[in-house]
Amino acid sequence: MSWKEKLHEIIYEADTRKGKIFDVILLIVIAISIILVMLDSVQSIYDQYHEYFYYAEWIITIIFTIEYILRVVCIKKPKKYIFSFYGIVDLLSTLPLYISFFLTTSYALMTLRALRLLRVFRILKITRYIGAGNRLMIALKSSLPKIMIFIFSVVIISFIAGTIMYLVEGPEHGFTSIPVSIYWTVVTLTTVGFGDIHPVTPLGQSIATLIMVLGYGVIAVPTGIVSSEFVQSSNNQTQTQSCFNCNEKDHLDDAKYCHNCGYTLNNK
Amino acid sequence: MSWKEKLHEIIYEADTRKGKIFDVILLIVIAISIILVMLDSVQSIYDQYHEYFYYAEWIITIIFTIEYILRVVCIKKPKKYIFSFYGIVDLLSTLPLYISFFLTTSYALMTLRALRLLRVFRILKITRYIGAGNRLMIALKSSLPKIMIFIFSVVIISFIAGTIMYLVEGPEHGFTSIPVSIYWTVVTLTTVGFGDIHPVTPLGQSIATLIMVLGYGVIAVPTGIVSSEFVQSSNNQTQTQSCFNCNEKDHLDDAKYCHNCGYTLNNK
Amino acid sequence: MSWKEKLHEIIYEADTRKGKIFDVILLIVIAISIILVMLDSVQSIYDQYHEYFYYAEWIITIIFTIEYILRVVCIKKPKKYIFSFYGIVDLLSTLPLYISFFLTTSYALMTLRALRLLRVFRILKITRYIGAGNRLMIALKSSLPKIMIFIFSVVIISFIAGTIMYLVEGPEHGFTSIPVSIYWTVVTLTTVGFGDIHPVTPLGQSIATLIMVLGYGVIAVPTGIVSSEFVQSSNNQTQTQSCFNCNEKDHLDDAKYCHNCGYTLNNK
Amino acid sequence: MSWKEKLHEIIYEADTRKGKIFDVILLIVIAISIILVMLDSVQSIYDQYHEYFYYAEWIITIIFTIEYILRVVCIKKPKKYIFSFYGIVDLLSTLPLYISFFLTTSYALMTLRALRLLRVFRILKITRYIGAGNRLMIALKSSLPKIMIFIFSVVIISFIAGTIMYLVEGPEHGFTSIPVSIYWTVVTLTTVGFGDIHPVTPLGQSIATLIMVLGYGVIAVPTGIVSSEFVQSSNNQTQTQSCFNCNEKDHLDDAKYCHNCGYTLNNK
Repeated sequence: MSWKEKLHEIIYEADTRKGKIFDVILLIVIAISIILVMLDSVQSIYDQYHEYFYYAEWIITIIFTIEYILRVVCIKKPKKYIFSFYGIVDLLSTLPLYISFFLTTSYALMTLRALRLLRVFRILKITRYIGAGNRLMIALKSSLPKIMIFIFSVVIISFIAGTIMYLVEGPEHGFTSIPVSIYWTVVTLTTVGFGDIHPVTPLGQSIATLIMVLGYGVIAVPTGIVSSEFVQSSNNQTQTQSCFNCNEKDHLDDAKYCHNCGYTLNNK
Repeated sequence: MSWKEKLHEIIYEADTRKGKIFDVILLIVIAISIILVMLDSVQSIYDQYHEYFYYAEWIITIIFTIEYILRVVCIKKPKKYIFSFYGIVDLLSTLPLYISFFLTTSYALMTLRALRLLRVFRILKITRYIGAGNRLMIALKSSLPKIMIFIFSVVIISFIAGTIMYLVEGPEHGFTSIPVSIYWTVVTLTTVGFGDIHPVTPLGQSIATLIMVLGYGVIAVPTGIVSSEFVQSSNNQTQTQSCFNCNEKDHLDDAKYCHNCGYTLNNK
Repeated sequence: MSWKEKLHEIIYEADTRKGKIFDVILLIVIAISIILVMLDSVQSIYDQYHEYFYYAEWIITIIFTIEYILRVVCIKKPKKYIFSFYGIVDLLSTLPLYISFFLTTSYALMTLRALRLLRVFRILKITRYIGAGNRLMIALKSSLPKIMIFIFSVVIISFIAGTIMYLVEGPEHGFTSIPVSIYWTVVTLTTVGFGDIHPVTPLGQSIATLIMVLGYGVIAVPTGIVSSEFVQSSNNQTQTQSCFNCNEKDHLDDAKYCHNCGYTLNNK
Repeated sequence: MSWKEKLHEIIYEADTRKGKIFDVILLIVIAISIILVMLDSVQSIYDQYHEYFYYAEWIITIIFTIEYILRVVCIKKPKKYIFSFYGIVDLLSTLPLYISFFLTTSYALMTLRALRLLRVFRILKITRYIGAGNRLMIALKSSLPKIMIFIFSVVIISFIAGTIMYLVEGPEHGFTSIPVSIYWTVVTLTTVGFGDIHPVTPLGQSIATLIMVLGYGVIAVPTGIVSSEFVQSSNNQTQTQSCFNCNEKDHLDDAKYCHNCGYTLNNK
């Protein structure tokens, strides 16, 4: 086994002890890095400790740079990694400090490193987590067309309700323009309700009441869609055996005999 | 094929290449028109560019007018189109600018054109979208009586809770009248919570707590209704067997005989 | 048929034409009465029209009084009506104006008349509405013990989280006492979020974040409970026929033949 | 029966009359104690009645201390009780007043006694409450991995969206630091929406709109998960047949043969 293969095993695999240790250390460095960026954005902490944070950030960036280079080097098809989701996230986690020489705000982009935390699921390679994740994805994917139609309807409702509220309340009550009115409608429909803008006239309040009751009904729709998909997917999941004798399929997971003809089932 | 038939194919059908191009261009013009109206409502943009927007609006209105006339001309039964949902929406999208000579605020009604965006589903004539849309409609329709009872109950709760809050808090704490109190109750029951009005007295806050916990339970009801309808409708959807004898399709998964004519079913 | 029986038919039954007319007129009077009370609570309207409203209110109260007396007179067992839900509501709808001689605020209690609007369901004596209402009640009733446990848990969480927030934020940031803190916790857990009180310290904001994510998860529980009950109750609802030949019960509502043995089913 | 056994029966069991009386009295004392702590935190009440509350608190603390000692004494394995959930809660309910000599704020920790109210379920030893509680726990437990993945995703979304809002809005509009921005994102995603911080710039409002629509979709996921688990668990519950041969109970409704031993089932 060449050194490249050894490195590949440590960096890319989480099954071996070394690979696990590598992943855990990496996650800790990522977590520290994110916490540093967060703290550094607090004015009072910035004033006192910014210098130390700056050095720490350089150390972390160098660690990430080395890691990125190693990842590219030790894999057979570097392109596949570079343009994969994790490859792009890894690169984006390394660049901000270098870019910050030219563009100051890029510094804060370091929180994109939060995406790297998704690697945590590689360590938690427990079957049920993967199973749960897969089932979540399947349920969400199959309910996508319904959710698309739903979001599209919400957008159209927001446009029209937003315009009506703009006409009714007008700029003097905070509804300064149609885009702002649409923003308010979304804030209301989603039941967030900041209260930075709110209707003042009786007519405006009446229409707002209608929009809220509508939003109340509307919130039921995506929930209903996803619920039904989950029920569906967990129903399918329990029906994996079919009887060799009568082809009955509705068996429970732990069934040993077909409940339709009494024939012995092959338990997986 | 006469020119009317050709035109009909382009305007009303989205299957042919020309029909698709026509629909896509129309959608782009609608989108531009809506964005123009939105931007024009922003004061700073209005001051600078209103003149250009005005001309652009006239061009779009003329395009829509021509389109509307063509739609009426090239169809055999114009009345059916004119009084259809799309016919009315198309007319409402054309009129505002003409009306704005007499009524200034009608200008903003142009966002009603957002309804025309619903045509986007004609281009996305993918079966699963139509299927998903249909199933959404069926689920919502069959849960309508339950939802009606539910909304009626919410209205009565709002009336009574609103009056109680008006008596408890009174005009000096923002609950200036019973209608305003009812508006506040709806804002609270739907968990929107703007905060423009909020209870101040201990008794008022206690009652508000009760209303909120109630609202918490109440939000579960429409969601439960719609969820159950979706589960129901997707259960039905999986019943894909059709009887060879009478073509009945609504069989249960484990049916052996057609429940409509008693003919033996071929179990897959 | 005595005059009492005739009156009974008009007042208590909604099947005959006269009964329907009586109920519709009654509902209109109730609606007018509620609208009057609402408008009268608006200061500007009160100043101008209070006198007219006062006379109108007297007329309505006299109508209700006569109606109440007739209801008591024309029924065989008046006690059963007087102590029924509708009987108490009818009495409460009549009294406020008489009481207002002694107690001014009782005037607003007239909105209790909103409860009388429930009679609307008597006119809408359409089977599906009654069926839907019944199913709603059954689903809610059978999920009551689960919901009780859930509400009890929410109360305990509110107590503890409220106390912690009181200790962390303190009176200087609006959390003036433990009851107020509990009020804030309920406002937050139910995702209402008025914003009249909100955490200011970093620690308080962190704890608030935890409470909100918790509330996010918690809102799923009652919805899940009610959804599952609805699914359950609508499953049961479709299984009303059983085959005379093989006793199979899982038939669809419109099945004519048993899907298990092909035997003819007796459709109700 | 020794006095220890008698005491054990009274204190630990709720089946006998004496045990029930003991539990009810205990619950009343706990409730009084919590109400005292709550009222004492209200400034105006504190000023007037604090002295009385202080004495009452001492009496209650002494009662709890005696109860705790008795509980430890009359059980065979005291360690098992002391380190159980209730044991720790009982101890925490007793300590605050003693600690308050050294640490003033510990006084308010007395609301931890709210946890003792959980004992109420011991008195309500009605089967359906226990059944409902168990089913709640099972449904929540089995949906835990899915909910963990979900919460993890929400955390990452909050990090990234929070950082973007910090960059877009900046400290001058209330987004003073990245942690504060993350707090705002959670407030928005969970649809709480206090409104203490809210976007002001058009770009910020646009991003906020996206976050809200996202949160709208996201709220559907945990609800869907829990709903599906409840449906699942209540489906299992309806399978009430038990095999005459092997006593296996988890059969499907239409099973004809036991899936555990192949024995013929008696269909009801």
